[in-house]
Amino acid sequence: MSERVTVNPHLSGLRCLACGRSRPVGDDTAGCPHCREAGAPANLRCTYTATPAGGVALPYTAHITLGEGDTPVLTGLDAGRLGEADVRLKLEGANPTGSHKDRFSAFAVSRAVAAGYAEVVAASSGNAGISLAAYSARAGLGCKIAVTGSAPARITGLLRDLGAEVHVLPDLARWEYVARFRTSRTVLPVTNYHLPAVGSSPYGIEGFKPVARELTAQFGGRPPDWVVVPSSRGDLAWGVHLGFAELDAERVPRMCLVEPFPRLSAVLEEGADPRGTFPGGTRFQPSIAGNTVTLQAVETVRRTGGRAAVVTDAEAEPWHRALWRSGICLEPSSSVALLAASRLVEDGRAGAGASVAVIGTAHGFKGM
Amino acid sequence: MSERVTVNPHLSGLRCLACGRSRPVGDDTAGCPHCREAGAPANLRCTYTATPAGGVALPYTAHITLGEGDTPVLTGLDAGRLGEADVRLKLEGANPTGSHKDRFSAFAVSRAVAAGYAEVVAASSGNAGISLAAYSARAGLGCKIAVTGSAPARITGLLRDLGAEVHVLPDLARWEYVARFRTSRTVLPVTNYHLPAVGSSPYGIEGFKPVARELTAQFGGRPPDWVVVPSSRGDLAWGVHLGFAELDAERVPRMCLVEPFPRLSAVLEEGADPRGTFPGGTRFQPSIAGNTVTLQAVETVRRTGGRAAVVTDAEAEPWHRALWRSGICLEPSSSVALLAASRLVEDGRAGAGASVAVIGTAHGFKGM
Ligand SMILES: [Zn+2]
Ligand SMILES: [Zn+2]
Repeated sequence: MSERVTVNPHLSGLRCLACGRSRPVGDDTAGCPHCREAGAPANLRCTYTATPAGGVALPYTAHITLGEGDTPVLTGLDAGRLGEADVRLKLEGANPTGSHKDRFSAFAVSRAVAAGYAEVVAASSGNAGISLAAYSARAGLGCKIAVTGSAPARITGLLRDLGAEVHVLPDLARWEYVARFRTSRTVLPVTNYHLPAVGSSPYGIEGFKPVARELTAQFGGRPPDWVVVPSSRGDLAWGVHLGFAELDAERVPRMCLVEPFPRLSAVLEEGADPRGTFPGGTRFQPSIAGNTVTLQAVETVRRTGGRAAVVTDAEAEPWHRALWRSGICLEPSSSVALLAASRLVEDGRAGAGASVAVIGTAHGFKGM
Repeated sequence: MSERVTVNPHLSGLRCLACGRSRPVGDDTAGCPHCREAGAPANLRCTYTATPAGGVALPYTAHITLGEGDTPVLTGLDAGRLGEADVRLKLEGANPTGSHKDRFSAFAVSRAVAAGYAEVVAASSGNAGISLAAYSARAGLGCKIAVTGSAPARITGLLRDLGAEVHVLPDLARWEYVARFRTSRTVLPVTNYHLPAVGSSPYGIEGFKPVARELTAQFGGRPPDWVVVPSSRGDLAWGVHLGFAELDAERVPRMCLVEPFPRLSAVLEEGADPRGTFPGGTRFQPSIAGNTVTLQAVETVRRTGGRAAVVTDAEAEPWHRALWRSGICLEPSSSVALLAASRLVEDGRAGAGASVAVIGTAHGFKGM
């Protein structure tokens, strides 16, 4: 299947987002070795010797695909205060398995193909697992997904229908399971397994960069003032920011990362250590659950003058139900991004005339 | 909300596909009155005084939308004999509620808004109902959906989440329920309720015409040789054909309509009366179930030199499961279209070099 993946000849290596050290193209799946040993884990990102004019560089010029990307935006939103600014909802549910994760999987799985792995392994009880299972199947690779015992039977059923090997494990044991493959030459970990958390495959994260190009076009040729993103460990937000920075480093949108309880907010507003674990939980927003923060999430906010926004389950539920009754069929973890956008308008951060892109990360038909 | 719908000033009326008689713009929801009284019911279609160059005319130039249309195509399919021709799978699951029905709902609901109705009513236990519920909600209209007692709780749950009024009724009683609103000035029937069957709203069917324009572009500027479409009463197949005929009447693709047991096949190959009801059923392909045939389905095949193809549940199940294990996440009623396409290649109807568009009508995440 390797003829289905072509490496971008300009791909030159990986670089640490914290210390700036370069690494050769490879699989440092727990981030920068130097920063990890220094006790401050940080993700790597891809570097290129050249980037295309008006576009973004990607690690593979031909890659495993199921038809992801180029998702539409919806305007005319009138819930809460949304109608007072130019708010556009990007429908990532239009991707082949129904979420933005397909953009990630296309490149994370292509890396596995390009480097000769036989399987990928990930910890996910939701969209990422389903997406990786589908893209691995498409590539002819095996796929091991570690899920928690609380994963709905519908999700494990979908994973098995897609041919994935499902491993049911307690929460932290899932990461330990993935970590077992850290030095494997045949099984490639593509989601975070390190604590303190680092983030997911840098090749996969590159797959989010085209969102920046698409949004710039969808806002009439200029980047929006704000991009609002549901976030757990910041893979999507960081990848979208990298895309905007590559398109025009002088005009990057402020990034607003939405979370169900204070994690990133605690770091940014109360000076909490990002390497800690954070108390709290969510029943209603499983796709952005988890008790960790990453440096890539912190940097996304700091570099863009952005912010973290908390939407609790109690606030999310009635908002989500009202959105469905207006025909907007997002999963709860995505609906909250629209509420956060409404608040940006309400508190004047995004005033009249401001342009706000909201990433509707997944549709609501998988039952998450 | 009516400012959200703008009538195409070139929309001139409706015309019967059988007798050719014209009707004014209106709601003859059981088709051509003349043909109905003559005992051979036939659907109407929209007529225009002008059509856009290189495009297709639509009844509303601004319409109720949730971001439907412009769906991607997937190439590189290698199940069965698919790899031997240029087969491209159009991913209609990328639409906002996960199926091609969103294209229909956008225009059927826009008609209801334009004509001042307060509600729409439809018989559906699946994709059409969910789609109409979402678009009605978006438009601020009410929505009554008549479902069978065997409709999965997940589907009725989604309908209620979208604010629809759900009426659980036996199969034929569903059509009788919809028929009650035939002369209503406030509630507009948008799916078939007549027996012999006619088809659904001609305004909604117009919404399928852009598929022809999109496919022509996606095949490099020329229409494919074949278009394969899962079909029950032929709304989608007829609408797609109308689009191609409007783009270039001299080069319309052959249409292959796929069904789970002989209905249309019985009419075309054995001379059965299309006005009858046909024995048989399907457990695995609920989206294309039903025991009736329509004249619009018959005409789609006859006018294009096409065919009807039967894929039984026994044939569909292993094929569908294998498709999922290759990462293609269609609902079973859509997977069968790919099997029908593989057979077109196998039996030489679509030989080497032939181009075949397969409409993957819905994703497989709603549990249908
Ligand atoms: Zn470092
Ligand atoms: Zn007639």
